[in-house]
Amino acid sequence: MAEFDLIAKYFTRPVTADLGVGDDAALIRVRPGYQLAVSADMSVSGTHFFTDTDPYLIGWKAMAVNVSDMAAMGAEPRWATLSVALPEVDEDWLSGFSQGLFACADRYGVSLIGGDTTRGPLNIAINIMGEVPAGEALRRNGAQTGDDIWVSGKLGQAALWLQHRMGRLDLHAEEVAKLATVMHQPQPRVALGLALRGIAHAALDVSDGLLADLSHILTASGKGAQLDWGLFPLPELPFSQVARSTMQQAVLAGGDDYELCFTAPQLRRDEILQLAQTLDVPLTRIGGITAVPGLTVLDGATRIELSHKGYNHFD
Amino acid sequence: MAEFDLIAKYFTRPVTADLGVGDDAALIRVRPGYQLAVSADMSVSGTHFFTDTDPYLIGWKAMAVNVSDMAAMGAEPRWATLSVALPEVDEDWLSGFSQGLFACADRYGVSLIGGDTTRGPLNIAINIMGEVPAGEALRRNGAQTGDDIWVSGKLGQAALWLQHRMGRLDLHAEEVAKLATVMHQPQPRVALGLALRGIAHAALDVSDGLLADLSHILTASGKGAQLDWGLFPLPELPFSQVARSTMQQAVLAGGDDYELCFTAPQLRRDEILQLAQTLDVPLTRIGGITAVPGLTVLDGATRIELSHKGYNHFD
Repeated sequence: MAEFDLIAKYFTRPVTADLGVGDDAALIRVRPGYQLAVSADMSVSGTHFFTDTDPYLIGWKAMAVNVSDMAAMGAEPRWATLSVALPEVDEDWLSGFSQGLFACADRYGVSLIGGDTTRGPLNIAINIMGEVPAGEALRRNGAQTGDDIWVSGKLGQAALWLQHRMGRLDLHAEEVAKLATVMHQPQPRVALGLALRGIAHAALDVSDGLLADLSHILTASGKGAQLDWGLFPLPELPFSQVARSTMQQAVLAGGDDYELCFTAPQLRRDEILQLAQTLDVPLTRIGGITAVPGLTVLDGATRIELSHKGYNHFD
Repeated sequence: MAEFDLIAKYFTRPVTADLGVGDDAALIRVRPGYQLAVSADMSVSGTHFFTDTDPYLIGWKAMAVNVSDMAAMGAEPRWATLSVALPEVDEDWLSGFSQGLFACADRYGVSLIGGDTTRGPLNIAINIMGEVPAGEALRRNGAQTGDDIWVSGKLGQAALWLQHRMGRLDLHAEEVAKLATVMHQPQPRVALGLALRGIAHAALDVSDGLLADLSHILTASGKGAQLDWGLFPLPELPFSQVARSTMQQAVLAGGDDYELCFTAPQLRRDEILQLAQTLDVPLTRIGGITAVPGLTVLDGATRIELSHKGYNHFD
């Protein structure tokens, strides 16, 4: 199958753009008064997913992690390009992969407007673009002393699945299935990101682990933070099954959850809790921003120390 | 070296953007009245370049092939994201690669505004964005019956280098050096692309081989073409060294030259030749667009038949 046939068959759909797949470049028009938010994430077989993962899920997640960056910026996801290296033309795999990719793109209003296909070890590089009213993007550098720190959903579920998959954690089948869905089909918090414009002082998505990601906000804002383990929303697993240290490691340093972490003034608490109701997204206050740099997590009166603070591809 | 240190050290430079590397997304603003042209090209070790290629040249070319797509659209290259998978953190390699990448980006006015670094088999995915006045982009679908077909520069040089590198063609050292420069440091025809707005009816860059690429214009425009081998500008090599069939294969079907091929009304001939002078870019008329579909290359009265029409990653 030639490259052009392959693109036509699997990667060409109607788009919301002035010009889509099939020329040297796509053409889009950004609404007046809006900035374009641009982000890129690469998914590599063996690094980001197990090679035997259902291609539908690989496609979904490759798109979802990019959409999540738009959510984190408070941007409306609009367009994406896909560059994919394939070891061979496996039509079953391509069919599943493209269905998963488009399912996620459709779910979040993203048009695939271009890209590249080539031969090579399996690698999926997506570049996403979204629109945000000029000056309203959620940045990392705006956290203020006294801000509450919030997270959406529950952290640690993807990491617990991974522990199970690697044979380090024994779980019941139905629990595994629930965690697997979080790992493989993350639901980026786009509606939440949009709603947080004008409310959050700083925001990002939790992809490498809460402490690692939150520390980017702290560095960019020149602040510190104190978190209270007792406030954290925990995955619903029988605690007998999971050691406290394993749970803490997963929740505080596990990556791949794609929830949002944001800071907001204490005065906005009620509004944020109302938002949680309206959007049907759990939002939990887990701590606060401090003037003194440093990031502390307290479990009662004890400071939690972790062996790994988060995910680093080059550790 | 952690991912963030690596990005800070090698891939962070001052940018022309509202927000560059370091947040969940970059923020750019497209000028009112302009469309954004978006294109992505992936370069894979072993597919697009030999693994032992000087990393500076890998960096230059990975950016150049993307810039070339902007040239082909008549768009001004402005911004790019880079996603790169690296088998290991080799600081010598990274230093050379990033220098080559930025040398090309700087040469053509491109700001690197974001991206991703991860571990995996060497793979470089760039997404480029440029600006073009709304409605003025050079498309593939506008060729008209009777249009002249033009190419910039000389085709086939990169393909001849490749033949030499693969031991199929014996050339003198200084000729090899000249061809190698074309192969590894293509100079995208950005100024030409911009100047062709309002003149060319259709355009693209020659990356997969002239016949393969030109056929995209013909398909998109619903036209045919006849080319005259006698008109082609040939690489300056002693003909005794290169068989006529080898030369024809390289010029007509060799990829990787990144010259522009465009069609324009016969009435614009003088203007185009004047442009060649002004821009100091050789422009050669090699044939014409026909109403009848099909693509013929005549060598005198004989029709040239090639064994391969162009490059296809999945042949």
